[in-house]
Amino acid sequence: MRNDLRFQPLDASRSPRFADIATFFRLPRHEVNAEVDIALVGVPFDMGVNYRSGARQGPAAVREASRAIRRIHPTSGIAPFALCNVADIGDAPINPLDMAASIELIQRFYEDLHRSGSVPISIGGDHTVPLPILRAIAKDGPVGIVHFDSHADTLDELLGTRVNHATTFRRAVEETLIDPRRTIQIGLRGSRFSADDVAYGERVGMRLVTMDEFEAIGRDAVIAEIDRVTGSGRTYVTFDIDGLDAAYAMGTGVPEVGGFSVRDAQMMIRSLRGKHLVGADICEVAPMFDPTGQTQLNAANLMFELLCVIADSLAARR
Amino acid sequence: MRNDLRFQPLDASRSPRFADIATFFRLPRHEVNAEVDIALVGVPFDMGVNYRSGARQGPAAVREASRAIRRIHPTSGIAPFALCNVADIGDAPINPLDMAASIELIQRFYEDLHRSGSVPISIGGDHTVPLPILRAIAKDGPVGIVHFDSHADTLDELLGTRVNHATTFRRAVEETLIDPRRTIQIGLRGSRFSADDVAYGERVGMRLVTMDEFEAIGRDAVIAEIDRVTGSGRTYVTFDIDGLDAAYAMGTGVPEVGGFSVRDAQMMIRSLRGKHLVGADICEVAPMFDPTGQTQLNAANLMFELLCVIADSLAARR
Amino acid sequence: MRNDLRFQPLDASRSPRFADIATFFRLPRHEVNAEVDIALVGVPFDMGVNYRSGARQGPAAVREASRAIRRIHPTSGIAPFALCNVADIGDAPINPLDMAASIELIQRFYEDLHRSGSVPISIGGDHTVPLPILRAIAKDGPVGIVHFDSHADTLDELLGTRVNHATTFRRAVEETLIDPRRTIQIGLRGSRFSADDVAYGERVGMRLVTMDEFEAIGRDAVIAEIDRVTGSGRTYVTFDIDGLDAAYAMGTGVPEVGGFSVRDAQMMIRSLRGKHLVGADICEVAPMFDPTGQTQLNAANLMFELLCVIADSLAARR
Amino acid sequence: MRNDLRFQPLDASRSPRFADIATFFRLPRHEVNAEVDIALVGVPFDMGVNYRSGARQGPAAVREASRAIRRIHPTSGIAPFALCNVADIGDAPINPLDMAASIELIQRFYEDLHRSGSVPISIGGDHTVPLPILRAIAKDGPVGIVHFDSHADTLDELLGTRVNHATTFRRAVEETLIDPRRTIQIGLRGSRFSADDVAYGERVGMRLVTMDEFEAIGRDAVIAEIDRVTGSGRTYVTFDIDGLDAAYAMGTGVPEVGGFSVRDAQMMIRSLRGKHLVGADICEVAPMFDPTGQTQLNAANLMFELLCVIADSLAARR
Amino acid sequence: MRNDLRFQPLDASRSPRFADIATFFRLPRHEVNAEVDIALVGVPFDMGVNYRSGARQGPAAVREASRAIRRIHPTSGIAPFALCNVADIGDAPINPLDMAASIELIQRFYEDLHRSGSVPISIGGDHTVPLPILRAIAKDGPVGIVHFDSHADTLDELLGTRVNHATTFRRAVEETLIDPRRTIQIGLRGSRFSADDVAYGERVGMRLVTMDEFEAIGRDAVIAEIDRVTGSGRTYVTFDIDGLDAAYAMGTGVPEVGGFSVRDAQMMIRSLRGKHLVGADICEVAPMFDPTGQTQLNAANLMFELLCVIADSLAARR
Amino acid sequence: MRNDLRFQPLDASRSPRFADIATFFRLPRHEVNAEVDIALVGVPFDMGVNYRSGARQGPAAVREASRAIRRIHPTSGIAPFALCNVADIGDAPINPLDMAASIELIQRFYEDLHRSGSVPISIGGDHTVPLPILRAIAKDGPVGIVHFDSHADTLDELLGTRVNHATTFRRAVEETLIDPRRTIQIGLRGSRFSADDVAYGERVGMRLVTMDEFEAIGRDAVIAEIDRVTGSGRTYVTFDIDGLDAAYAMGTGVPEVGGFSVRDAQMMIRSLRGKHLVGADICEVAPMFDPTGQTQLNAANLMFELLCVIADSLAARR
Repeated sequence: MRNDLRFQPLDASRSPRFADIATFFRLPRHEVNAEVDIALVGVPFDMGVNYRSGARQGPAAVREASRAIRRIHPTSGIAPFALCNVADIGDAPINPLDMAASIELIQRFYEDLHRSGSVPISIGGDHTVPLPILRAIAKDGPVGIVHFDSHADTLDELLGTRVNHATTFRRAVEETLIDPRRTIQIGLRGSRFSADDVAYGERVGMRLVTMDEFEAIGRDAVIAEIDRVTGSGRTYVTFDIDGLDAAYAMGTGVPEVGGFSVRDAQMMIRSLRGKHLVGADICEVAPMFDPTGQTQLNAANLMFELLCVIADSLAARR
Repeated sequence: MRNDLRFQPLDASRSPRFADIATFFRLPRHEVNAEVDIALVGVPFDMGVNYRSGARQGPAAVREASRAIRRIHPTSGIAPFALCNVADIGDAPINPLDMAASIELIQRFYEDLHRSGSVPISIGGDHTVPLPILRAIAKDGPVGIVHFDSHADTLDELLGTRVNHATTFRRAVEETLIDPRRTIQIGLRGSRFSADDVAYGERVGMRLVTMDEFEAIGRDAVIAEIDRVTGSGRTYVTFDIDGLDAAYAMGTGVPEVGGFSVRDAQMMIRSLRGKHLVGADICEVAPMFDPTGQTQLNAANLMFELLCVIADSLAARR
Repeated sequence: MRNDLRFQPLDASRSPRFADIATFFRLPRHEVNAEVDIALVGVPFDMGVNYRSGARQGPAAVREASRAIRRIHPTSGIAPFALCNVADIGDAPINPLDMAASIELIQRFYEDLHRSGSVPISIGGDHTVPLPILRAIAKDGPVGIVHFDSHADTLDELLGTRVNHATTFRRAVEETLIDPRRTIQIGLRGSRFSADDVAYGERVGMRLVTMDEFEAIGRDAVIAEIDRVTGSGRTYVTFDIDGLDAAYAMGTGVPEVGGFSVRDAQMMIRSLRGKHLVGADICEVAPMFDPTGQTQLNAANLMFELLCVIADSLAARR
Repeated sequence: MRNDLRFQPLDASRSPRFADIATFFRLPRHEVNAEVDIALVGVPFDMGVNYRSGARQGPAAVREASRAIRRIHPTSGIAPFALCNVADIGDAPINPLDMAASIELIQRFYEDLHRSGSVPISIGGDHTVPLPILRAIAKDGPVGIVHFDSHADTLDELLGTRVNHATTFRRAVEETLIDPRRTIQIGLRGSRFSADDVAYGERVGMRLVTMDEFEAIGRDAVIAEIDRVTGSGRTYVTFDIDGLDAAYAMGTGVPEVGGFSVRDAQMMIRSLRGKHLVGADICEVAPMFDPTGQTQLNAANLMFELLCVIADSLAARR
Repeated sequence: MRNDLRFQPLDASRSPRFADIATFFRLPRHEVNAEVDIALVGVPFDMGVNYRSGARQGPAAVREASRAIRRIHPTSGIAPFALCNVADIGDAPINPLDMAASIELIQRFYEDLHRSGSVPISIGGDHTVPLPILRAIAKDGPVGIVHFDSHADTLDELLGTRVNHATTFRRAVEETLIDPRRTIQIGLRGSRFSADDVAYGERVGMRLVTMDEFEAIGRDAVIAEIDRVTGSGRTYVTFDIDGLDAAYAMGTGVPEVGGFSVRDAQMMIRSLRGKHLVGADICEVAPMFDPTGQTQLNAANLMFELLCVIADSLAARR
Repeated sequence: MRNDLRFQPLDASRSPRFADIATFFRLPRHEVNAEVDIALVGVPFDMGVNYRSGARQGPAAVREASRAIRRIHPTSGIAPFALCNVADIGDAPINPLDMAASIELIQRFYEDLHRSGSVPISIGGDHTVPLPILRAIAKDGPVGIVHFDSHADTLDELLGTRVNHATTFRRAVEETLIDPRRTIQIGLRGSRFSADDVAYGERVGMRLVTMDEFEAIGRDAVIAEIDRVTGSGRTYVTFDIDGLDAAYAMGTGVPEVGGFSVRDAQMMIRSLRGKHLVGADICEVAPMFDPTGQTQLNAANLMFELLCVIADSLAARR
């Protein structure tokens, strides 16, 4: 328990959950600042996609959906707002007319944040977003990655460009931001453009868990693999919402059927408790394709799961 | 088989399922009356919620969705309309501007119904609704409860009030309407306001099955627990639709991810065959959050499951 | 005022407007019967369309939407339920797999109704529906027609068939059910299959008011034309909801832009006060294309407008 | 122009309009404070309705929709954020389980606000909301009212209660919060429960403009009437969004067809320039009935219109 | 690999997946022709239903959804467009006003197609559609059937008619188009009109796998049963989308809860690799009931699964 | 009438309007070719926006909506497919990851088209799209412009970039693609970023018709102004769908309230008959914000209006 807890969600006994402005978990909107242990950030960038855009509206939608979340984790009992100073520090700056400039702006924002000592949990934006984040927070050495996704995002280029939502983790390996041998990709499936869409990861030593393997070995074995691959080193979690089965995630640019469930995702994230976690993101929530609100609700819930294990990780390290 | 079957669904050979007024299962709309064995009732009360309202429109939506249901159960072969006189007796009276009066009005309506000898299957309304129902039908002694829900609804108070959708089953224990040792809660999960949100039930001897336990022991073991806990005594079933995984139930005030499936719900309800069932309800269906209609369809299907086991139970006791 | 008023809408002080089963204006569901002055009927037939079906669900949707309507007309002060016995007599029978049989079934239902002395106000169903209605109620001699529509529905045949939603009023002329010289079509517009799509009406003496003329002469002049054309004879009103501008009526098989407004429709219907009205219908409401509910709400409101002038007409003739 | 402008919308050159948290017009979220000239407030109270609830989510939806609004009025050239300190001061406190307490809480919140000297522009909530607001800000003497609505909201009671969304302006007259002779109601229409639903206003000297009169005399004449009735005294504006034609406002509890347009509303509000305006509200926006987002967008635009005339009014009085 | 591959999907490097006209998998729209190995066809016929229509718009919706599919199967590595000439040959002709004529037109279209040597994969339309298809392609002798569905569709008649979506497979047996002993029905569930709704299939030797059995024996055992029942003979696959659990398929006329998942469907279809496949269809996709697009996306994905095993089957037989 | 008419819409007597692939007006999909008189093109480019993207899906949606349009104009009697060879020539190429390259690709595509002699009618895409089109087709000298829009799109730069949807017509003037004195902008309104958002047009001699002026002088006077300003020279029509009142056009990136109606738009386009028209476009249709389909239906109807006057113009010049 921190002695100087400064940020608490709005008190539901005075301001019901439907009331007042929507911030992540109804926490205060704060600026980048050293007193923030865990910074909740939006990155409304969706210029890296080759199919349906719309993830620029993801952060707003997840903030709204996060009204539904209360304070304490039902299984672990973790009370993140009692362990750490957690705040909504708004959105990284973006220039929606200049892709390269946006990547730069995001990177600089996270560099400031990293210098301030906050651990970021981010809501994209498309899955290009982890690249500038990792450029900012993995400068000190490559991190391990727990990567939930239906796509490997390790192409060399897409439509002649090298920074986009399909190349992120190849760039990150090349830039030694991530350690491929400490990287595990979970949920791979979905039709492919060419036979070697996912081959790069295997080549550089990533652990790829396709949905076929996921089903064959079972979730507990996958959890063991996550543990084995990432070990005790610094680890970052990136969650493309299309890793979820399309029945849970139609509100995204490229929904893919036949994936894992939200329950699976919850259990895999919960298993990260005790890991040395340096940040996390959830990407590709596109609310205009989500008329039921289910995708954004799932993202808000998984963000809370991430927050709990990261708050616990930080508290344990104090 | 009853000799004097009076109520049958509209004949689809003359009036197709999309035709004519929407009553529960296209049965006649009847008044409270001794010839009704099983009374299907709406309770359009949603003043007991602290987040999103809208369950007042639940009964209308479930009536409409119930057009899809036919006459005979595909697994058990139970033909409820051939076993019992089943009718739609409309909605309990409500004053949407006076919460306390509404609770009173509902209770009195169910007292009349109980006196007439009908067994009620109700569609809420929010999960405050079982309290006035139980006050009416459990006067003769406490009943056992099979309670499907993501939340325990056993707080002592919410926002300074003692009768609302979060306190129902605590009040019911205190008023000796239900026997906590014959009560089982299934599906608990969802973030909590405080660490002891669900503690009351444990303290008074309820059997709490969280989703973690549900998954750990499996559905068959949960079914065995339902049987063990409720035994042969008078038993009431209450189903908060948010007990279902949010993928099945976005059309509710507080959808919660990571729950059980409709198939699970069907199998658990089917397992109640042979029990001494005195009534049932399904609550918290809020159709304005259900653009696909899935939640209301699920409620209509689960209502039919409940109808089948209750009709069988009544027929067996004749 | 009738002395023996038998049917009143549900009392909102006990059963709020969102409560209980949905009937037209929350009136009792009654069988065909001589004590019903005005019979509100659904005709869930949509087999006569060549583009998008779905009007089979129109009666259910308009019943639900009609919850919003109260008891007294705000402008005329007409209180229809105090003037006449008005009831929801359910839906005409349909065989959704046999078009010809359905037309027969509808006609026979309306013959019974006509014999009972009730004046029908119907909700279709597609715009084939007026044909069997007129066959039943215009046996005694042709009626005048006030026809609101974007299409003339006077083709000779469509796809080789002669009874469908595009030929209704040609058949009705040929069968001497309607008097073309006492027929006025209002709102014609929309692209055409061939140059003489609307020519038949002109040839037989109908008064055609295109949207161009509507705008040129103004609504008051159109109202004067309605009066002049229909005169004092027996008159039937048929309203294809696509007569409304698509901004008011997307929930229909073939929405057409550039039409008249609901306000225009209200004023034109109100102008019928004092006419000798023998029935009315509103057709082509297809709720699955109406996610906002606007089209069905418009239909419910226009049905109430029709009810008021018809109730007044009946009362005046007593 | 104020010398000490403290609050500006987020700079779209760094934070695009889709980015960061949703506050009214992307202004800072501030607490009640004397330096705020115009306070934008949400009042998420919808317990005063007898039909469909949901306006509790109105403030959140209008904040989100207000992202679309820029800084300067296109016709008048008014630049409100350059004239006044305008801030989003969050939502008034509410207890969604206690109607009377909520009314109290709202009143006290506005009393604080009024003491601080801020002029409030509020987003409801249902149309009960103006009563506690007026109790707070009209203590010094009754104000004139410009009331846009399809309903008069001057019943004596509804369902046995005296404070609800149908009685607001009768209570306000009785409590001498408003001067009925300086009150004008615009847009009245919609079916009625009884013949004298709107009679009270006429009796006490309000000026009632039904839609029939609106159309008959034209918008310019209505604007002249607004000017004549309200004169130069302190005036409050209250806008029930169902005053708009249902084609513009399906996202509300009781949409009413045949009303005025958003353009009409804009022109009537613009005509208030130069008046002595002491506050304004827009009520009854229920976003779950608004899948296109049109109603909330309209509310955001009309809120900006109100802001412009109020900012100009304040600046002129300095 | 074929030497003369003529048809390839649009090149996404020049025409992104959201661009240009929607054909199945963005393949060329071609006429019936001998050079087409696999013909993708729409059959927009929905006159055979007794509940909700709308499957006439299924082919258009699945074409649009199929933009999301790429070129290579992620698990099997099958590259169908590199194995066979696959083309979109448009829709079978229909007369939406004449059911019998439509059945004729469809049959003749498939006779032409069959003569040309193309193997058809069809998107319905309702589940009447397989009958005219089988009449065309099973003239040479009865085929085995893999039938995914929640309903058996083996009634003798429905509403007095013998050709409709509930009788298809009974007619097909009677006409010796299918071999009942080589027919397996998977996913049966859903309430029944009468006790022997599914009895016919059992009587003639079909293998019926209810959802209860599916769950009891497990998917792998069902796959073994599919293999055992169909053997090495000519086999046709028919997939009523309501075979999927309603959580995956609300966009259909009669969604049924408690079914199998898309993952289950994928694995069962993949197991058909190596079979002698003579065609396939997916029916009952009704997009107006599918606001999230999930059902149509599922259909597009399952169509690709079918395409892969059929392309492989054809290539293996060359 | 052309002697060699090659392209006709699908014959609805064999292929109903809901059937087969969606092309513009169900015309053949053809390649760029000299025999095409009028080329219907999609330009799925939406990288030029600073608020909500999504217009990349506009062409697909308008193709689908154009199924509703028949062959002959109801007022003018123009039969475009009998006057000219009209075809859907697909979409201009785009690289969704490279804005500058996309502008180039579009320009080159239209240069080819222009060389082939076809007159283009395009569906965007955002309102950057007219710039590359004009660069291709206005090389021979500046054209006059009829510009329907709520925004002037004549900023000098937006977010540091000079080619985007807010600068199009300033660039076009600077590049002498358009003659500002022969340019008229109709429908201007909407809040502004700065006081001189629309000033550039006035400075260079464009005729700006704000909605205030539109209402003040009336539609007929605006039509006269269109005629006066454009005269007899080569004229291009560009229609930003947000020029329509938001009640007709929620399905766009920046809907603006208080605009003109679809009827107004129809009449203004019809008034262009006899002009020397060299092309037209409709931009900013974003279907994911259009759940009712109204915006896309409006675009399809206005596209038909444009087609009729352009076909007539071409035929007259032969």
